[in-house]
Amino acid sequence: MIRRMSNRGRLVIGVLGSGKGSNAQAIFDAIREKRLDACVACVLSDVEDAFILERARRAGIPARFISAAPFRTKLEGEAERRYVEALREYGVEVVVLAGFMRIIKRGMLAAFPHRIVNLHPALLPAFPGMESWKQALEYGVKVAGCTVHFVDAGTDTGPILLQKVVPVLEGDTPATLHARIQEQEHVALPEALGLLAARRVRVEGRIVHCD
Amino acid sequence: MIRRMSNRGRLVIGVLGSGKGSNAQAIFDAIREKRLDACVACVLSDVEDAFILERARRAGIPARFISAAPFRTKLEGEAERRYVEALREYGVEVVVLAGFMRIIKRGMLAAFPHRIVNLHPALLPAFPGMESWKQALEYGVKVAGCTVHFVDAGTDTGPILLQKVVPVLEGDTPATLHARIQEQEHVALPEALGLLAARRVRVEGRIVHCD
Repeated sequence: MIRRMSNRGRLVIGVLGSGKGSNAQAIFDAIREKRLDACVACVLSDVEDAFILERARRAGIPARFISAAPFRTKLEGEAERRYVEALREYGVEVVVLAGFMRIIKRGMLAAFPHRIVNLHPALLPAFPGMESWKQALEYGVKVAGCTVHFVDAGTDTGPILLQKVVPVLEGDTPATLHARIQEQEHVALPEALGLLAARRVRVEGRIVHCD
Repeated sequence: MIRRMSNRGRLVIGVLGSGKGSNAQAIFDAIREKRLDACVACVLSDVEDAFILERARRAGIPARFISAAPFRTKLEGEAERRYVEALREYGVEVVVLAGFMRIIKRGMLAAFPHRIVNLHPALLPAFPGMESWKQALEYGVKVAGCTVHFVDAGTDTGPILLQKVVPVLEGDTPATLHARIQEQEHVALPEALGLLAARRVRVEGRIVHCD
């Protein structure tokens, strides 16, 4: 099955996050500096005092806390419906997970098929899951990086839009390697969204084509 | 446990291969062009008419067919002993597997601890095993590459010396991606051997340090 993004003008992005929102900031900056021709319609968070909401407000972007209770690690049921409803209300076409600490379940995936984007701090399929920079150091790889991918029902398994590489350097600690990867995350995410905004992306099975 | 290479002058390499030997040629070329300060003492093959033996003879390097029968996919028993004996006879310090199509077993690993080097056409730990460039294309990664690693008892699991990255391009076939990876293999292998030749390598658990 081939899914092509619709062709309806400027890309409308919704951002979901639970934390400080540095990747959301990278998107705001890229739009403000006209490196990315898109618009962030809303930022939603499951953490009421998450700094990502404050960042959004400072950037003049609608920001809303939406409780995802009673679940602690997933977005499902009534909470999932509230998120989907809010994203639709803002006319969101592509959902970006920017440090959103919940597993996305079927209802949300069905509402935004191949239109939920995640950023993982490793060169997938290597080192899925938590603290991947630490996994990479412990394995002893000499190159690390980050992956922008569409979310599917698996953990960090969806079709890959873009990957950026960083070297692992002699003397690296988890903190220094993570910082180097994060620098590339802030490049990778706007770049990947730029491909979507330019309507150049076509997903065929596991493969993301850029025309 | 920390293993440091001995400090005894010029690195003496033994090459094992079963096929055309393009990576062996990359080593010969690097030595001839003085990009690598080492010497290849012998080339051994389990295939009597493998072109790698012919390449070695043309380069003036002792080349020997040593049968690994009766096994078909591993080097073990009497055959393993013949290989170890030949490598010792030529004073080999580091063994390079350059397209050697057999699994290295305990006897050989014990004779050359952390001194057997393999080249794998993927960014390990992603895509171990056969036809890794095809696995990478089917998965849909956007960066591929190759890994030079020490051989251990697992399949493509040993401590990593060096990795090189290549992009996966729109329209790539297994053949075009494989060719792009092989170009980097011919860079990576002499470079990794250069680190060993410079006595800069120290292995600590899974981690290869370059001092």
